[in-house]
Amino acid sequence: MKLGTLAYQGKERLVAQLDDNRALDLFTASGSAAWFKDMLTMIEAGPEALNEARLLIGQAELASVIALEDAEFRVPLRPVQYRDCLVFEEHLLNSFSQAEKMTGRSFAIPPVWYEQPIYYKGNRMSFIGHGQTVRWPRYSDHLDLELELAIVVGKGGVDIPPDTAPDHIWGYTILNDVSARDAQMREMAGQLGPAKGKDFDTGNVLGPWVVTADEIPHPAALKMDVQVNGERWGGGNSRDMQHHFGEILAHISASEAIYPGEVVGSGTVGTGCGLEIGKRLADGDEMALTIEGIGTLCNMIRKEP
Amino acid sequence: MKLGTLAYQGKERLVAQLDDNRALDLFTASGSAAWFKDMLTMIEAGPEALNEARLLIGQAELASVIALEDAEFRVPLRPVQYRDCLVFEEHLLNSFSQAEKMTGRSFAIPPVWYEQPIYYKGNRMSFIGHGQTVRWPRYSDHLDLELELAIVVGKGGVDIPPDTAPDHIWGYTILNDVSARDAQMREMAGQLGPAKGKDFDTGNVLGPWVVTADEIPHPAALKMDVQVNGERWGGGNSRDMQHHFGEILAHISASEAIYPGEVVGSGTVGTGCGLEIGKRLADGDEMALTIEGIGTLCNMIRKEP
Repeated sequence: MKLGTLAYQGKERLVAQLDDNRALDLFTASGSAAWFKDMLTMIEAGPEALNEARLLIGQAELASVIALEDAEFRVPLRPVQYRDCLVFEEHLLNSFSQAEKMTGRSFAIPPVWYEQPIYYKGNRMSFIGHGQTVRWPRYSDHLDLELELAIVVGKGGVDIPPDTAPDHIWGYTILNDVSARDAQMREMAGQLGPAKGKDFDTGNVLGPWVVTADEIPHPAALKMDVQVNGERWGGGNSRDMQHHFGEILAHISASEAIYPGEVVGSGTVGTGCGLEIGKRLADGDEMALTIEGIGTLCNMIRKEP
Repeated sequence: MKLGTLAYQGKERLVAQLDDNRALDLFTASGSAAWFKDMLTMIEAGPEALNEARLLIGQAELASVIALEDAEFRVPLRPVQYRDCLVFEEHLLNSFSQAEKMTGRSFAIPPVWYEQPIYYKGNRMSFIGHGQTVRWPRYSDHLDLELELAIVVGKGGVDIPPDTAPDHIWGYTILNDVSARDAQMREMAGQLGPAKGKDFDTGNVLGPWVVTADEIPHPAALKMDVQVNGERWGGGNSRDMQHHFGEILAHISASEAIYPGEVVGSGTVGTGCGLEIGKRLADGDEMALTIEGIGTLCNMIRKEP
């Protein structure tokens, strides 16, 4: 099942995809069931709400069907918390080599990277969805995209073992972690990780759909592909994650509760950003990030007039 | 005005301090005014709610007064987002010198630290309040405290100029950023900043009170002091912040909206943690962090049995 959030007739609606052109408004179709108010409420309601949505899709009534051409995508949900990892070795090798050229500092993959997932927490308030415009932050001259696989946490928990951690994944989606490389390089010399390099409004993009976890075998082995203005920049496969999402959730949840509606990104797939291949975004560029089985996340980036 | 959140007779209540022993339950005193439901709702309601609270304190009726000895403090609010800075030079100089000994890596303050505030985002879900027990994370052998001044954002905004940024501060409080130094040193070699070194449940402590911004001239120049088991560890004054909170909010809000209820920490005041002075916490230690005009934030740290 593919779930998303659409703006339609002036309201945001939690929907399930019916086919390439149509989606079902779950709240309306269910006769206003409270758990279909929005995606976070549905996640918190647990497996029963998922089963109910499947039933509604089976009997989809015309009055609750939305033509996608009449609606706009929004971010599927505002994450309760947002962490972003760095688990593709090829991305790191390529990026470090470029960062050395940009900063004059030297970078090498530290042993800890192979031993545990490395992650930072990003701005949970700055997300947008498929088709919305990414606004170029005024303080940056060097914008880049990043293609990542992301999970949405379903069941909360603490001290979750790696083998049962996949049960805590509610769904999978595409993440474009748009990055201001100049701000990022500057601030990361301060040792606390990225901040303005990642956190600007509209700089985190999720969607178009969240595919429920039952449709993606764990660990996910999905083809990933980036295009800009129709030209292929790069891509890879999520099977090359050094630490899979089960291991990531186990690591994060050690003595630390995770909650329904949190989002965790994989980090950029190898060659999944411009930095690695010597390219950068320009005003008006159309980004198209595809992950097998999920869809294509498209956004234009614009400088403000 | 000092505002806080108390657990009293099985419910969490937004209160205003009346004196050292008593607080006023604002929701009850106001005849259940919606904006006094909790601190975040009050913040979002703006200056009118602050004025109304002042009026209620003036006419405090006995039925709404809570004796502090009958109640327990809770975290004043769950932050909408939580950022933590690093703006005390003395802390950095002392900590780097110790970190070099611990890791064998070499550290120096980079030029960017003097030019802009450096910060990371922490776990907004892991906060507790005054008097609650900090639970020692199982993966760490080396726990430390950190004394910080923190602000709570009142008015949201974006691209806020430094000179009007202080108007966006709703109040000031004390932050104990409890830190697992071993996990922190290990993971920070991965370049993305602290994660498990800071994020464990109960590892962020705020309180006891949030003092409204009208009572603290900006930039804040407040004495700060740490004691453990009654022994003084260190302290300083918030006037030594390299970037004051106005500059910090201006930096954060560049092309990036901030929201009511966000929390921003100053980073540790010089000698405000054990790392700097060669001390570490032990099971059962009583931490007491005092900031002039706000109060003393006391918590015990315990290993789980």
